[in-house]
Amino acid sequence: VTVSELGEHALVSRIRARLSPPRRDVVIGIGDDAAVVTGARNAHAVLTVDALVEGVHFKRRWSSPGDVGHKALAVNLSDLAAMGAEPQWALLSLIVPGAHVVDEIDGLVDGLSALAAVHGVSVVGGNVARTDGPLIVDVTAIGAVRPRRMLRRSGGRPGDELYVTGTLGGAAAGLEMLASGDTASDAERAACVARHRRPEPRVRTGLAMSRARAARAAMDLSDGLADAVRQIAAESGCGAIVEADALPIEPGARRWWTDSAREVTIAALVGGEDYELLFAVPPAWKGRLRAARQRAASPPLTRIGRLTSDPGVMILAREGRREPLPAGFEHFRC
Amino acid sequence: VTVSELGEHALVSRIRARLSPPRRDVVIGIGDDAAVVTGARNAHAVLTVDALVEGVHFKRRWSSPGDVGHKALAVNLSDLAAMGAEPQWALLSLIVPGAHVVDEIDGLVDGLSALAAVHGVSVVGGNVARTDGPLIVDVTAIGAVRPRRMLRRSGGRPGDELYVTGTLGGAAAGLEMLASGDTASDAERAACVARHRRPEPRVRTGLAMSRARAARAAMDLSDGLADAVRQIAAESGCGAIVEADALPIEPGARRWWTDSAREVTIAALVGGEDYELLFAVPPAWKGRLRAARQRAASPPLTRIGRLTSDPGVMILAREGRREPLPAGFEHFRC
Repeated sequence: VTVSELGEHALVSRIRARLSPPRRDVVIGIGDDAAVVTGARNAHAVLTVDALVEGVHFKRRWSSPGDVGHKALAVNLSDLAAMGAEPQWALLSLIVPGAHVVDEIDGLVDGLSALAAVHGVSVVGGNVARTDGPLIVDVTAIGAVRPRRMLRRSGGRPGDELYVTGTLGGAAAGLEMLASGDTASDAERAACVARHRRPEPRVRTGLAMSRARAARAAMDLSDGLADAVRQIAAESGCGAIVEADALPIEPGARRWWTDSAREVTIAALVGGEDYELLFAVPPAWKGRLRAARQRAASPPLTRIGRLTSDPGVMILAREGRREPLPAGFEHFRC
Repeated sequence: VTVSELGEHALVSRIRARLSPPRRDVVIGIGDDAAVVTGARNAHAVLTVDALVEGVHFKRRWSSPGDVGHKALAVNLSDLAAMGAEPQWALLSLIVPGAHVVDEIDGLVDGLSALAAVHGVSVVGGNVARTDGPLIVDVTAIGAVRPRRMLRRSGGRPGDELYVTGTLGGAAAGLEMLASGDTASDAERAACVARHRRPEPRVRTGLAMSRARAARAAMDLSDGLADAVRQIAAESGCGAIVEADALPIEPGARRWWTDSAREVTIAALVGGEDYELLFAVPPAWKGRLRAARQRAASPPLTRIGRLTSDPGVMILAREGRREPLPAGFEHFRC
């Protein structure tokens, strides 16, 4: 059955039936003109939207419908995590070719819904629209953060140490593996491909850092580490230096770009879509950082450099030379 | 200059520069991982999302970029108005072909921004993504409503009178005029075309009805009057009867379908996109209704029928016969 054959109202009912029961703070969920929710007291609302476009952000031959649904929510939860916010609700806007089969929409909704359940998020509304173009999954996510715990990009100061969650370069390597057809010859490769298909938003770490007030600035790595460092530095009015030797490169990615250490480093810096978090932590806040690490032990946090009063954004290469950090990844230019 | 040539970061900066300064309750606007706002006290948050897809919801040869920007926000403000909510913030998610010229994005943002200013809405964030398909403008709007003033679809009771704002059939007639090439031979036709291009969301009336507690249920007419009556009746566990003679048909639409009164009535019932509001008002609440009308005198509210304990949804035709209400408009089936 295609979505055209099913019709808009029936498709909405079908999506609604696959979602988990709503959180208690949902007053009106799917089925009215708009959703109505009760905001947390003493907290700001945090709002973000991000779209996955077929052929640009995913290919149906490389990602299952469930992967796409997962990732469409994950990229938004990553943005909330980077603000230190607790995710609460999501809106799902689907732009669907009429010939799309309904089973694939089911899979997409299931993938999104499973990740929503992990993080206590309710899908409270959305929209379905027809298109003559590619499938687009546009998700709005809403969360809450206490004013004093909010993590901005602009809060950093010279001397703050830069920490990153998890590992780098896995998603970019996974995408190259998919393009080359060599995807699952071992567990390390499979891990890279999974990083591309189903990134795990670092919600727990973002909350832990926010609650322990362990960071002065934060940002997610949707467009790669180099872009994130550059933006935190610029917004904070600082420079930065990143130590190439310190970068926690995903093992499968290190093996994938085995030709040269330099190539590995560049890929880890500019490869997008790792959806790790970058934090700026003053050296004096070590105790708070320890508290945050106790709240969220996994994935590990790795110190990769620091903010500087010098305005440049540099990398300390393995050979001890300083070079300008390579440019980041920009969607329209790739 | 095309959006590909400009690049994603520069496009976001350009959009940001065209928007009005934010409301006071915006803590962080465009430029961080997510937007942060301060919710109103003692109010629920109201959330909605709706997309305009080129070739499906608009054609670039019939609507200017400014028209598209206006309408993309208007359809969302209409949903908030139907809940009795005060609009506060919006997120703009643009899915843009790389070859699209930046000037048209400017026009689109200006159209959206002008309507936002009229209703005191701040565009606090969004996203731009590239597509190989049509231009898509997906807007999320957020508003606030006090719990006891919220207007649901399900609140109606048998005997409640049905009122509709403004006029019906104008947008559908305007779309046919555009298709036929006869668009502006007189002011009445131009008014219909304007209804298609730039619907005015009935924010003031929705707020007036909500604040005066004059309605027990409400819904907007995005998919036509017949669909709205059917849905309010179903959600309220009632039937409904609509009086054909009472329908406030847009003058240009009446002339456009001049062949038969029956055709005019059906077009006014099933023609989508008028974005008027439908309210269910108990007969005993006449005083409250009067108060609401004083708060928002324009557009007029017209009584068009009532909810019934009889489960059918009927129309009382001009000749005195009762017939089932024709089916509404469904996007995937048109």
